[in-house]
Amino acid sequence: MTHEADQPIEWLRCDAPASDVVITSRVRLARNFAGFPFTGRADTSERAQILRIAQSQILDADLAPKVMWVDITELSDTERRVLVERHLISSNHAEGDQPRAVAVSSPDERLAIMVNEEDHLRIQVIRAGLDLTDAFEQANTADDKIESRADFAFSPRFGYLTACPTNVGTGLRVSAMLHLPALRLTGDLEKVKRAAKGMNLAVRGFFGEGSEAAGDLYQISNQTTLGRSEREILQQFEQVVVPRIMEFERSARLTLAQKRPYFFEDQIFRALAILRSARLMKIEEAMTLLGVVRLGIVSSLINDVPLATLHNLILNVQTAHLQRTHKRNMSQRERRIERAALIRNALKEPNHG
Amino acid sequence: MTHEADQPIEWLRCDAPASDVVITSRVRLARNFAGFPFTGRADTSERAQILRIAQSQILDADLAPKVMWVDITELSDTERRVLVERHLISSNHAEGDQPRAVAVSSPDERLAIMVNEEDHLRIQVIRAGLDLTDAFEQANTADDKIESRADFAFSPRFGYLTACPTNVGTGLRVSAMLHLPALRLTGDLEKVKRAAKGMNLAVRGFFGEGSEAAGDLYQISNQTTLGRSEREILQQFEQVVVPRIMEFERSARLTLAQKRPYFFEDQIFRALAILRSARLMKIEEAMTLLGVVRLGIVSSLINDVPLATLHNLILNVQTAHLQRTHKRNMSQRERRIERAALIRNALKEPNHG
Repeated sequence: MTHEADQPIEWLRCDAPASDVVITSRVRLARNFAGFPFTGRADTSERAQILRIAQSQILDADLAPKVMWVDITELSDTERRVLVERHLISSNHAEGDQPRAVAVSSPDERLAIMVNEEDHLRIQVIRAGLDLTDAFEQANTADDKIESRADFAFSPRFGYLTACPTNVGTGLRVSAMLHLPALRLTGDLEKVKRAAKGMNLAVRGFFGEGSEAAGDLYQISNQTTLGRSEREILQQFEQVVVPRIMEFERSARLTLAQKRPYFFEDQIFRALAILRSARLMKIEEAMTLLGVVRLGIVSSLINDVPLATLHNLILNVQTAHLQRTHKRNMSQRERRIERAALIRNALKEPNHG
Repeated sequence: MTHEADQPIEWLRCDAPASDVVITSRVRLARNFAGFPFTGRADTSERAQILRIAQSQILDADLAPKVMWVDITELSDTERRVLVERHLISSNHAEGDQPRAVAVSSPDERLAIMVNEEDHLRIQVIRAGLDLTDAFEQANTADDKIESRADFAFSPRFGYLTACPTNVGTGLRVSAMLHLPALRLTGDLEKVKRAAKGMNLAVRGFFGEGSEAAGDLYQISNQTTLGRSEREILQQFEQVVVPRIMEFERSARLTLAQKRPYFFEDQIFRALAILRSARLMKIEEAMTLLGVVRLGIVSSLINDVPLATLHNLILNVQTAHLQRTHKRNMSQRERRIERAALIRNALKEPNHG
């Protein structure tokens, strides 16, 4: 795959609804072809067969103006990590040499279908901001188009069958990537995370299951799909769950701005100053500081950094993107140097040379 | 006392010998009047008597074009702390309501004579950079002029008698304030401190005995005075001891610049950026960052901050100076706000509004 670093992929858009808090909304449908074992139980020849069927059905289904088919086994480690960093495939899907692929709508990268991940197909649609309805419509349409040519494993009693029981039923998972820096700064994050778990939500880091939160970015998602309709799940998540957490974060931002203005500004202007000055930058620190600067931008304290610049940095400071940009593998030290240089250059003040 | 914040006092000068490492050289002579108990054993009326004798002798001795007599018991807490922060009196001397004073040459503040500290008189002369000979000459001259009018406690066998046995003999203490940031950054500071102790030196923080190092500034001084001549002590300290530690620091700076240039620049430019951006600043952090910026200036990595600006900040960010500037006592939070504002303003980039 060839991506330009500054290409306008969907999740870097900045004009989306509720984008002060919600980076992206995501809908994922898990589907499996009837007559084959689930990927984890299939042997190499069965997996190759699944891959061939999926490829022809996906590419013939007219899912988007341009859909790229990426055979992951043909990619280098860096190329695989680039897909993970772009949130097009999971970390698990990046590993191993068993037949596997991803189909991606280009250049918007709104639609990504992983083939031979845990399920035969994982149809993912992403939207910037809080926009689950649109995301669901596109995923649903893609699902219908593929299903019109294929036979999905389905039980009249349970619904769609999936490798993991938590996905059985609609096979639907809805999630949102939320930016919660103010809740961390006020110390209320753990409380909100507990509340989210109480609402039967999973709270995960920037790169999904098992990953750490980076840049104060959290993925929250519904936990169960069985016994409820797709519309019910969607509506509950988009109209109740996400708005509730959004309100916690917005209220924390207001508290900081009104009651602790010096602390608030201190955090934000220090973060920007360090990003503009450092000569060495670890990925964890870069993400944390970029997250705080994002808060400064959406709070109108920082006015000379476009949100798009910041979103591009969140992507391009990642290790594999950095190596792709420089067309070579780099040592950790080299990456820290080049990451700092990339950030300094992107955030350069207008009146500086 | 009225001092202007930006008045050119001696220890803030920037053009002194070896000033890349040595901030100041200091000579102190401990003297006591014959016929009186040491200050610690004198009662209030004896102390008052000592004070009166000292005052007339010091003010009549023509020690400098202008000598100010400051009765410390008449000062507010903030005014007392201002004297400590200017290194004119010790912390001990600032406290209590027993008769005590300090005489200070104005406006250079090169000469300061504490009256009724541990000894009746502590004649201190300070010079910017490494210049102990000049400092000693002025202290010696002051001592001679006062002694020509007074009778100092002196034993033909031991020399000058002092309250603490370690000062008996010449009553001389020589010290230097050294800036050792590179030794901290390379991790060799403890080694050098141990070596200094092996050379029979005391190593202390910015505000003397018991104080923490601030801004990577350390006072080193000779430990004993008995049995050696003043010239021997002076020569050994100025020509052997201080140059040796200076070379350790210079060599650490060279190592950083040549072998770890990115780390070196990273530390320096981050420090400057934080000082230019923070909205809240604790004194400890201010001193640390100012110390690192000083290293950047003397290493020619920072070219838009005059060393004099930096030295003035080291003085004026101190708590009592800050309160004096604002003509009021401030809470810790207010001080952090005003300290950050003071620093931002002083370090403002030339092309910024």
